[in-house]
Amino acid sequence: MINRLVQKIKDTNAPVVVGLDPKLSFIPNHIKAAAFEKHGETLKGAGEAIFEFNRQIIDKIYDLVPAVKPQIAMYEQFGVEGMVAFKRTVDYAKDVGLIVIGDIKRGDIGSTSEAYAEGHIGSVLVGNTVCQGFNEDFVTVNPYLGSDGVEPFIQVAKVEKKGIFVLVKTSNPSSGELQDKESGGFPIYQHVAMMVDAWASEHMGKEYSYIGAVCGATYPELGMTLRMLMPKSYILVPGYGAQGGRAVDLLGFFNDDGYGAIINSSRGIIAAYQKENYESFGEEDFANASRQATIDMIQDINWALGKN
Amino acid sequence: MINRLVQKIKDTNAPVVVGLDPKLSFIPNHIKAAAFEKHGETLKGAGEAIFEFNRQIIDKIYDLVPAVKPQIAMYEQFGVEGMVAFKRTVDYAKDVGLIVIGDIKRGDIGSTSEAYAEGHIGSVLVGNTVCQGFNEDFVTVNPYLGSDGVEPFIQVAKVEKKGIFVLVKTSNPSSGELQDKESGGFPIYQHVAMMVDAWASEHMGKEYSYIGAVCGATYPELGMTLRMLMPKSYILVPGYGAQGGRAVDLLGFFNDDGYGAIINSSRGIIAAYQKENYESFGEEDFANASRQATIDMIQDINWALGKN
Repeated sequence: MINRLVQKIKDTNAPVVVGLDPKLSFIPNHIKAAAFEKHGETLKGAGEAIFEFNRQIIDKIYDLVPAVKPQIAMYEQFGVEGMVAFKRTVDYAKDVGLIVIGDIKRGDIGSTSEAYAEGHIGSVLVGNTVCQGFNEDFVTVNPYLGSDGVEPFIQVAKVEKKGIFVLVKTSNPSSGELQDKESGGFPIYQHVAMMVDAWASEHMGKEYSYIGAVCGATYPELGMTLRMLMPKSYILVPGYGAQGGRAVDLLGFFNDDGYGAIINSSRGIIAAYQKENYESFGEEDFANASRQATIDMIQDINWALGKN
Repeated sequence: MINRLVQKIKDTNAPVVVGLDPKLSFIPNHIKAAAFEKHGETLKGAGEAIFEFNRQIIDKIYDLVPAVKPQIAMYEQFGVEGMVAFKRTVDYAKDVGLIVIGDIKRGDIGSTSEAYAEGHIGSVLVGNTVCQGFNEDFVTVNPYLGSDGVEPFIQVAKVEKKGIFVLVKTSNPSSGELQDKESGGFPIYQHVAMMVDAWASEHMGKEYSYIGAVCGATYPELGMTLRMLMPKSYILVPGYGAQGGRAVDLLGFFNDDGYGAIINSSRGIIAAYQKENYESFGEEDFANASRQATIDMIQDINWALGKN
């Protein structure tokens, strides 16, 4: 799957992933009204509105970018019906050819991580029948429990030809409280980066490993260090745009050839119509506002990479 | 909710939580056969078998223990249908008066943690209607992202009168790879313990805080240290039994009065009928095997605490 991701990044010329993290406040009123009319102001109504919102955005961006990254929390908050919307979103995005990175940040003791891995990028045996739970292409993994919490994901990814991104340095303000603590001369996130590199070296696709890393765009000064520590890993970089990361600051996450990193934007794209730059599209035409914001983001990053 | 948990521990005289972590291999054949006959060898069939298995165990243990702890991964592996089984299990356990600790180990950047918190221990607004997602009483939280990944859970717990258990030191063999790294003279898990204590002091129930900690039974030598570092927090201790923790080793997690810790057993109870000690119950009578294993575990712990 990492080979397919790299190829799609080359084909689209867009090292960009669109974060499908819908809040109800991002969703235009006409979509919510239609969903609530059908299902009432219920969790099912919310799930229907979310899926319809995602579907219209996907229809306008699937030709521009290689991948989408639904943040499962935004679905899980609506309970089972939210999970239905998550699954419908994963399936729809895959149907139109997008790669799906499930931003699930799971991680647990070995046997439990195995269950998460099977549910999200693998399969389970029910009687004698192989069934698939959520069936994303990649997932994000939390390493706090150490290698036996991560390795089940690696094993499933290997068997299923899928991949993972391990949290190394997250984009939030307080990420340093634990991740930056120095131990043995290095901050914790560098210890994690070295673990990721060891896994990556043993699990290679063609040019890159299917074991990648997550590093926040909000800490651009770490880009070059992390790039050097994990030369074989793709780096998923959230935090561009709304969280404050700028394209020109992100060059360190890329290799000299302009590959090796993929930048995520969520709110900046899916709620573009609510921003000054794109408000002329209006609420009804929100999906075209998202399309334009995607085009602008790709240009911005390619300009920074000297590719325009 | 922490007051209710402490009261129920006193009433049952059982500082014990039963982990509802069903694997299909734990579920007796007659239950699976009935579920598969109804729904086929499908995710729905698996979900039905899981719920029926849980329901029968809950019916046999709800009078013995204060709480159950479903591990969401074991449900999530079966996709949406697994989540349906999770929700049915939460609702059923609450209906019979048990406190439900959702073992979800979520943790993300602030706004995303907020969505998880609302989905699991809080509520969401759909239009003008307040809806609840999974509605557990407590959840476990992963602290790797630092305080702004934990605080939304605390805020929701405060408003909803619920609670959380923050991962401090997990029970798995590799937990030390990051958690034991020394920084500034203390291992990372002690830094987390100190964060938990600060939160706990500010968010008190009657005797204990509704901000608790998770510390693995497999590291009993840490019990007294962690108990001292977090005097106001209840400590949820997984890893008794199948993972190797013994009651007599766990005294350090308790206060002198015998309170302050709650010990989890999962496999040792729900799959008791598959173990030598309880195999005389037979597969059909699996739920009574679980009941007996629960009684034995409570006795074992109370004996160690000098309460028998």
